[in-house]
Amino acid sequence: MADDQRARVAVPRDRDDDTSEVAAAGRRDFVREQTGVDLHHVGSYDFDPAVTAGNIESFLGVAQVPLGLAGPLLVDGEHAQGEFYVPLATAEGTLVASYNRGMRVLHESGGARTTVVADRMQRGPSFLFPSSREARDFCAQLDTDFDGLAAAAATTTSTGRLLDIDRWVVGRRVYTRFNYSTGDAAGQNMTGKATLAACEWLRPRVAAMESYILESNTATDKKPSLANTMLTRGKRVVAEVTVPAAVIEQRLHTTAQAMFDARQASIHGGLLVGSFGNGSHPANGVTALFLATGQDAANVIESASTLNLTEVRPNGDLYYSVTMQSLIVATYGGGTGLPSQRECLELLGCYGSGRVRKFAEIVAATVLAGELSLGAAVVAGDWVSSHDTYGRNRP
Amino acid sequence: MADDQRARVAVPRDRDDDTSEVAAAGRRDFVREQTGVDLHHVGSYDFDPAVTAGNIESFLGVAQVPLGLAGPLLVDGEHAQGEFYVPLATAEGTLVASYNRGMRVLHESGGARTTVVADRMQRGPSFLFPSSREARDFCAQLDTDFDGLAAAAATTTSTGRLLDIDRWVVGRRVYTRFNYSTGDAAGQNMTGKATLAACEWLRPRVAAMESYILESNTATDKKPSLANTMLTRGKRVVAEVTVPAAVIEQRLHTTAQAMFDARQASIHGGLLVGSFGNGSHPANGVTALFLATGQDAANVIESASTLNLTEVRPNGDLYYSVTMQSLIVATYGGGTGLPSQRECLELLGCYGSGRVRKFAEIVAATVLAGELSLGAAVVAGDWVSSHDTYGRNRP
Amino acid sequence: MADDQRARVAVPRDRDDDTSEVAAAGRRDFVREQTGVDLHHVGSYDFDPAVTAGNIESFLGVAQVPLGLAGPLLVDGEHAQGEFYVPLATAEGTLVASYNRGMRVLHESGGARTTVVADRMQRGPSFLFPSSREARDFCAQLDTDFDGLAAAAATTTSTGRLLDIDRWVVGRRVYTRFNYSTGDAAGQNMTGKATLAACEWLRPRVAAMESYILESNTATDKKPSLANTMLTRGKRVVAEVTVPAAVIEQRLHTTAQAMFDARQASIHGGLLVGSFGNGSHPANGVTALFLATGQDAANVIESASTLNLTEVRPNGDLYYSVTMQSLIVATYGGGTGLPSQRECLELLGCYGSGRVRKFAEIVAATVLAGELSLGAAVVAGDWVSSHDTYGRNRP
Amino acid sequence: MADDQRARVAVPRDRDDDTSEVAAAGRRDFVREQTGVDLHHVGSYDFDPAVTAGNIESFLGVAQVPLGLAGPLLVDGEHAQGEFYVPLATAEGTLVASYNRGMRVLHESGGARTTVVADRMQRGPSFLFPSSREARDFCAQLDTDFDGLAAAAATTTSTGRLLDIDRWVVGRRVYTRFNYSTGDAAGQNMTGKATLAACEWLRPRVAAMESYILESNTATDKKPSLANTMLTRGKRVVAEVTVPAAVIEQRLHTTAQAMFDARQASIHGGLLVGSFGNGSHPANGVTALFLATGQDAANVIESASTLNLTEVRPNGDLYYSVTMQSLIVATYGGGTGLPSQRECLELLGCYGSGRVRKFAEIVAATVLAGELSLGAAVVAGDWVSSHDTYGRNRP
Repeated sequence: MADDQRARVAVPRDRDDDTSEVAAAGRRDFVREQTGVDLHHVGSYDFDPAVTAGNIESFLGVAQVPLGLAGPLLVDGEHAQGEFYVPLATAEGTLVASYNRGMRVLHESGGARTTVVADRMQRGPSFLFPSSREARDFCAQLDTDFDGLAAAAATTTSTGRLLDIDRWVVGRRVYTRFNYSTGDAAGQNMTGKATLAACEWLRPRVAAMESYILESNTATDKKPSLANTMLTRGKRVVAEVTVPAAVIEQRLHTTAQAMFDARQASIHGGLLVGSFGNGSHPANGVTALFLATGQDAANVIESASTLNLTEVRPNGDLYYSVTMQSLIVATYGGGTGLPSQRECLELLGCYGSGRVRKFAEIVAATVLAGELSLGAAVVAGDWVSSHDTYGRNRP
Repeated sequence: MADDQRARVAVPRDRDDDTSEVAAAGRRDFVREQTGVDLHHVGSYDFDPAVTAGNIESFLGVAQVPLGLAGPLLVDGEHAQGEFYVPLATAEGTLVASYNRGMRVLHESGGARTTVVADRMQRGPSFLFPSSREARDFCAQLDTDFDGLAAAAATTTSTGRLLDIDRWVVGRRVYTRFNYSTGDAAGQNMTGKATLAACEWLRPRVAAMESYILESNTATDKKPSLANTMLTRGKRVVAEVTVPAAVIEQRLHTTAQAMFDARQASIHGGLLVGSFGNGSHPANGVTALFLATGQDAANVIESASTLNLTEVRPNGDLYYSVTMQSLIVATYGGGTGLPSQRECLELLGCYGSGRVRKFAEIVAATVLAGELSLGAAVVAGDWVSSHDTYGRNRP
Repeated sequence: MADDQRARVAVPRDRDDDTSEVAAAGRRDFVREQTGVDLHHVGSYDFDPAVTAGNIESFLGVAQVPLGLAGPLLVDGEHAQGEFYVPLATAEGTLVASYNRGMRVLHESGGARTTVVADRMQRGPSFLFPSSREARDFCAQLDTDFDGLAAAAATTTSTGRLLDIDRWVVGRRVYTRFNYSTGDAAGQNMTGKATLAACEWLRPRVAAMESYILESNTATDKKPSLANTMLTRGKRVVAEVTVPAAVIEQRLHTTAQAMFDARQASIHGGLLVGSFGNGSHPANGVTALFLATGQDAANVIESASTLNLTEVRPNGDLYYSVTMQSLIVATYGGGTGLPSQRECLELLGCYGSGRVRKFAEIVAATVLAGELSLGAAVVAGDWVSSHDTYGRNRP
Repeated sequence: MADDQRARVAVPRDRDDDTSEVAAAGRRDFVREQTGVDLHHVGSYDFDPAVTAGNIESFLGVAQVPLGLAGPLLVDGEHAQGEFYVPLATAEGTLVASYNRGMRVLHESGGARTTVVADRMQRGPSFLFPSSREARDFCAQLDTDFDGLAAAAATTTSTGRLLDIDRWVVGRRVYTRFNYSTGDAAGQNMTGKATLAACEWLRPRVAAMESYILESNTATDKKPSLANTMLTRGKRVVAEVTVPAAVIEQRLHTTAQAMFDARQASIHGGLLVGSFGNGSHPANGVTALFLATGQDAANVIESASTLNLTEVRPNGDLYYSVTMQSLIVATYGGGTGLPSQRECLELLGCYGSGRVRKFAEIVAATVLAGELSLGAAVVAGDWVSSHDTYGRNRP
């Protein structure tokens, strides 16, 4: 690489925390120089780039992701009550229409009942000892020292609280999951800081500890895992509904039994090929809502895993439930305060503190709507044709 | 629900394919009426909403997702060659800076060598028979009738081609994966249409077939699965590098052995808790690149699963490889043609036909950069502190 | 350890291939000396220890495992036809009685229809290359060189035949599964020898290959794995039956719907906790039959994984199918020729060559009997009480 | 089926609890009549069949499984201390010799350090409610009513004790794992009875409960599962050793680094194909010890899953640890009291009460010996040749 190249290389890296408009425009100029591409649309944001401080480095502009409006979504939750209009950000044709259809079905069935059953976020440090003997003893010490650990963690956060610690001995290493309540934040950074403080407090108290690593993949952040399914990560939420036979026929053009049978085929298909969860397409709704509202879209990986339980009632009604085991959402912090994202949260009445479980319920109800709609489309045979109507089935 | 409510309800659903500015503004007005929220930023797009036709229904506006610029990323691929500036859309502070650091390490190590090793997209119909006997015979017939099936599929697409068919008997049901090459499109819709045509061609030729379902969760679209890992979904790509010991010390403030040891802890931690893959945070880079370039962000679920293989060389260098088994990307179709998204693809020289493997290589190289950077941060102990510097570690 | 101890230490290890009665008695004497325990029952075998040559080292005596007789098992297979009396070796009270009940149900339902749908055994060598580029090219070479590989493998076995090779690039390593047909042997050793010969033939033809390992855990011998489920290991067999409503009521004291509902609860329970397969207790029947007939009981791990698919018919009948994806059985070699084990195979008409698929069908039908019986017991509430009657529910 | 056939059918089923010698001989006569096979060896047991009461129905005779003697195994445990001679029942040639070699390596390395880190057995009832709301409330009630549940469970057993209850809401169903300590018994029956009593006590106290099922596959008895790995089933035991470089060279003809590198290849191979655990062949040793000592061989499925953690020390020594997460063993009840089985337990000093953790440690140390030996054989290239020497590599 020649010297002049080195000079140019420097641009995107240097002063990456400068969020002034001058810096942003400079980066776009640099790109044009380097590649000949004019970032006209990328540069067409309507806010002062300074608002992105803490959200991004080397700010260049924005991706403008289309938003569609679905609803009303009728929710019979403990935190979300009534009708909601749901903004969905996607470029997949048919998606909004399909969720919309599901929301209509929910509406005509009395709404989605939603229940938050657990709520916890974690960081997973691991600790090394001379042998498994000291490793096991350390596990016991985590109980004895719990109050001290919780107090150390609490020095770093006003809203997070250490709940308990899962632990496992593997050889001479102890793996853990430090579980926290995190208020209205998703909490990955909060739990990182708190666990670091807890570990540093602990270190001098455990003579046998050789070293520790703050994260050893047991929190499985942004990775699918059975630990998330079994031990919960984020919110554990159920959305359920009993759809009357008449609604299934009129709106979905099929029957409860046919939908149930197709579910059976899917459940066993998923088992056969080692699929996580047993949902149809929870990821579509979760991703679209996450993008609209400033959630971390990478957390879709954990958040979109559901266990769907369905039953055909003797009268031909369909009971359909969606259980999300690791829904990671926030109504505060992260990208939730960015201009358009905040508007979308406000549209749902979910911006700011004390709203996160309400938001979790809305996500779960939205997912339920999508499962009903696609579940019926696969059966009724209008899946491909609807993509022809709405989508990009042209290539 | 009162009649006037019904009237209002109608708005987001009615004429959901009207992508005129009038319709979009009408939806925003409707929302303001219903919720009191003014969608100012959501409405601040700089393109004619008509461009979103086929991408979304009930178009309301846009999510403006911040873009940062990383690079140069030096790629020694078969399709991507040289330096690239990489747009990353995210609201997670530190992410761009961390990938940037990894890209510098790659650069100083001679770049990331990238190799596409497989390429296929699928749809997974299942077929029902009176008993397992006819089910097994049907599996054989899929071979005999392969040319006919491929021809039927080909009537629906000019770029897709049926490659082969995986098949399994479970009880009296046959599960399959129809595997296609899909050119520069991601191909989920293409394979849906093609497989429907193939199945309809097949149905009258199989007297014993009772029914079939176009998808029974063996394609595992937008779901993590071992099938995707073992049988490939989308692109299978490797990115690898040998980082000199001196670069590790200077840029990452640690050693190859320390990074390797932390990897070992993570690999076993992941095994313990039932995690897919063994990467550190591939999802962050994949999601950010997907959002910037108009990929379907819900496909991050499959795409972000990696197998990382690392070695400490006797001279203290670190060999690091990332293998992506199911990277689902497109340079044509879907959201890739939307205004800002297209610009980002152009910035990478990846917009349009014949570019998809080049793009796949850039994604893999980006992920490799991120694995190096986070892998070092966890070891060197600057993980939390860097989030304090850049990110939102304040709540 | 004192010198005289060292001398004693030598006993069990020295001349471990001496299968004379003198050597066996000497070992029992040694044990008595060392531990004071008289191995009276262990020494009470009724055969010349020389028959165990090739099956065991340091022969000491026998474990006498109780055998129960179940049946008649009515099988409507392609290889097994008619009634069979099934020897089951176990010490778990209730097991034989429960399978027997299930066999009666099968009998009254017209027997179990059985179908072998695939048959293959593997060894999983991995190969190392300078980079993923050569690794990928090697994958292609496995096709070009297939005939040579198959010929090299064939030099080591008269009954085994190389069928095809699954392959995956991970970083700079190529993982494979060499798939063989293995006649009436289970084939683990046969495939080991054949694959070694194939690899040695291949090595000089692949200049870029740095090294290879004969097994890298992709054959997953004696380990549960999705590869076994998806790619088959041993025999893939289905056993299925439609049980008339009247039989369910009379013999199982419940209904098809109740059994189906309990299955649903189990399937979702298994998904929740990351269980392989979805059977109730296939391991019980498989283990008992394996022990009786000289199969390798460690292969129960793969062999006992089933996918059960059930349906309630409109008339109240129950369709029940069991699909075994990796049933590893032999009617020749290994322990099948040992005295009592051979008798048990003969009792089933399954000793010797050309009988292995017949035996596989009997195993599958037996497992189906057990699934029906336990599936009903859980529902009808006589599960614990039957263990009280028959078993050891006393502590 | 003709009437006379029905008559014959009756034989194995009728009076299946008659363990007299007359009944046993009658069954063998019946078999000879039906099939022409003389069960000479099956009938050659040396005990009164009455001892099998509670272990088997329709007693027919015995499978005589060859036993080999390995050892001395040097164990540095908390319960097992010193040298042990280990009886291994198998028909797989090479197995005993291989474990023996590993035991010699352990001996020359100072023995295997063993640590029991957890101990619990479970039954997994599930409970149905009108909706997820009552399901969640029921989860809370399990805490409030814990003492009552424990007391109800305690009425059925003198040695079992309810420790705690894992619980999950899925839709309107609550899944649980009732965890017990079970003394020296394996405890599957004990926990079944105790949980039935607890559930019956609970039922009238939970008005909203619609029904319950005593087991819904969350205990995953005789099935591999992540729940067993993460939540422990049976004993969780670690065996570990540091093997000096000289011993590796002299006894295993390889180096620590070579063995470590092969492990790496295996770990990633296993991840690739969806294998549970990461051991080499723990099932071989576990099965052989289980058969010898009257353990339930079907429990090998859970028991043989290990996480192996290895390290190369700077001085060329090899640290090797085996962690068993769900080792299900007993020194009392089940088949442990059968004549030859009891002798084998006595030989280990493990028969009767208060010995089960000692036995668990011996199993873990044995497994460690086998992992070392095979791990080296794969590397040193004497794997196939040793099977040629000892085993049945002839077909």
